[in-house]
Amino acid sequence: MPGNKTLVLVSRPNGPLAPDHFAIVDKEIPALAEGQIKVRNFYASLDPGIRKTLGEDKSYWQPTPLGAALTANTVGRVLESRHAGFQPGDLVFGTGAMQEISVYTPGKMCWKLPPDSRLPLSAHVSILGGTGLTAYFGLLDVGKPQAGETVLVSGAAGAVGSIVGQIAKIKGCRVIGIAGGPEKTRRVVEKYGFDGVIDYRGKSREDLQAAIAELCPDGVDLYFDNIGGIQLDAALSQMKWRGRVAVCGLISEYERTEGSGQIMHNLFSIVAKTLRVEGFLSFVYHQQFREAQRELEQWILEGRLVYDDYIREGIESAPEAFMALFSGANNGKVMVRIAAPDDAI
Amino acid sequence: MPGNKTLVLVSRPNGPLAPDHFAIVDKEIPALAEGQIKVRNFYASLDPGIRKTLGEDKSYWQPTPLGAALTANTVGRVLESRHAGFQPGDLVFGTGAMQEISVYTPGKMCWKLPPDSRLPLSAHVSILGGTGLTAYFGLLDVGKPQAGETVLVSGAAGAVGSIVGQIAKIKGCRVIGIAGGPEKTRRVVEKYGFDGVIDYRGKSREDLQAAIAELCPDGVDLYFDNIGGIQLDAALSQMKWRGRVAVCGLISEYERTEGSGQIMHNLFSIVAKTLRVEGFLSFVYHQQFREAQRELEQWILEGRLVYDDYIREGIESAPEAFMALFSGANNGKVMVRIAAPDDAI
Repeated sequence: MPGNKTLVLVSRPNGPLAPDHFAIVDKEIPALAEGQIKVRNFYASLDPGIRKTLGEDKSYWQPTPLGAALTANTVGRVLESRHAGFQPGDLVFGTGAMQEISVYTPGKMCWKLPPDSRLPLSAHVSILGGTGLTAYFGLLDVGKPQAGETVLVSGAAGAVGSIVGQIAKIKGCRVIGIAGGPEKTRRVVEKYGFDGVIDYRGKSREDLQAAIAELCPDGVDLYFDNIGGIQLDAALSQMKWRGRVAVCGLISEYERTEGSGQIMHNLFSIVAKTLRVEGFLSFVYHQQFREAQRELEQWILEGRLVYDDYIREGIESAPEAFMALFSGANNGKVMVRIAAPDDAI
Repeated sequence: MPGNKTLVLVSRPNGPLAPDHFAIVDKEIPALAEGQIKVRNFYASLDPGIRKTLGEDKSYWQPTPLGAALTANTVGRVLESRHAGFQPGDLVFGTGAMQEISVYTPGKMCWKLPPDSRLPLSAHVSILGGTGLTAYFGLLDVGKPQAGETVLVSGAAGAVGSIVGQIAKIKGCRVIGIAGGPEKTRRVVEKYGFDGVIDYRGKSREDLQAAIAELCPDGVDLYFDNIGGIQLDAALSQMKWRGRVAVCGLISEYERTEGSGQIMHNLFSIVAKTLRVEGFLSFVYHQQFREAQRELEQWILEGRLVYDDYIREGIESAPEAFMALFSGANNGKVMVRIAAPDDAI
């Protein structure tokens, strides 16, 4: 089987994603340099932040060049190794491209799966990958929740938000979610165990403020934001004195047309309530990943933490899966199965 | 001389302040309760944050009721005391009302002036009062500048901003200011010793971004914001990885019409660069005020720190002085001299 099917960007979106922004092309597999490994990928995740690299905006991350592969987190098996610590057959996580076969340089963004993990392979690009680690460090290190506090989570039915809420419950907080539509709001309460939920659909900024005020009558100690936009703005108005906002993502902004902006009414709350609004990216915590993965897996095995993966078959389904992330059609962490795992972990 | 001239709010502004929002009326002087003191005020400051209490917005501080006095910081002399620690003749700072005679309960918002201070009385509502303390704690505790870092300050010719920039220079930082017009920008560099200055007048969001990028080619480590609006938005786009934004005030928002908002383009920088954006109010540091006042006074006496007071004569000039704060017509800390100090401190 020659070639290496890869998802590439063929035109830059300005507004919502469409299938014709992408193509699946055969790319060559580069020769291995010393210290590198060649990996057959089984699962690859589609992460919302990647959307920010598809435009021309150079002020954040480097744009994905036209014709280049989209970045993805993958889990796969080593086919060939020129790295002393890795053998063919090893299972590895890597941050690279959405493609069948990747060449990785092991380091902080490529590691062996924990050999004693009892979770399925797909979990290593979701709950034990960027998603779970983002929820874990964003909530615990940036948000610093204390037992008895009120935690508000946007994107509460999403891959990160659902984990954030459950960890906050484990830490003894009262947890309110924001999600869209009857199916998702039901899942937030019934499956993920949040204490209450707000359906943002059809709600104005003022409606959202009123809904948060009703469910958080004493205010919000910690807001974990995946969404931005009027959800962030409404939450700012309902924060407690010295509250914290952990800014994980602003998915409402990612499909914004270039040059448009987000209208904010409540930024003054940052002063009036002396708030701390802090962004984070999970990879800065890479030295603590193994410890966090152990704790997350333990909670899962004890039945205290549940997670959902939204798996689509084949790399060809990647564009549709990526679009689902922004329309909210997904139910859990969005990933594609690139190849059937050759055997269990 | 019966009565107690007091500046009161008579109608709520929706948009810019005008003289007919205010009146000077005679208020009764309440009888002293146990533990209180009666003070003749010499100077009273007009602080931008008070603007936020003149509307009907209850989500922040309590609105000033119609007919009630405007809050001010004052310095004056005790006329009568029912507090064991205070004697007639003592000089005191207090947060109370813009009026001739105030009744205060000594505590964290009312204290005796340091007996060994060598600065004029007016300094105790500016550089040694809320203004200097806001600059000191906002910069040092929230911003945490390190020698060699690049610090950007908006409202750089203002009472707080000018002090922030000078303290940042004392701490070994490279300091760039943003101010409006040729006179103010010149003062920022020539009088306050900033390393560079940007005139925001006539500049779009994109112009401001380009101007910041030019003067801070390696990015901004710490942005001290007094203004908000497009200055904040432009600064967000130019922050360094892990930069900090100390949000002191958002004066561009204070005269906003109710229901309008602020368009932000660069909030995603908070995530992409893992920024910390933190608001603060100086009074939370009240236990450290005396120490900070000593250090500020020392820097002044050594000639390392200069400050400007914009003093208007008589309580009748308070509305005009307050409006000057928002039009930028002032040059330094805005205050009125309510009565001539009866003798030097």
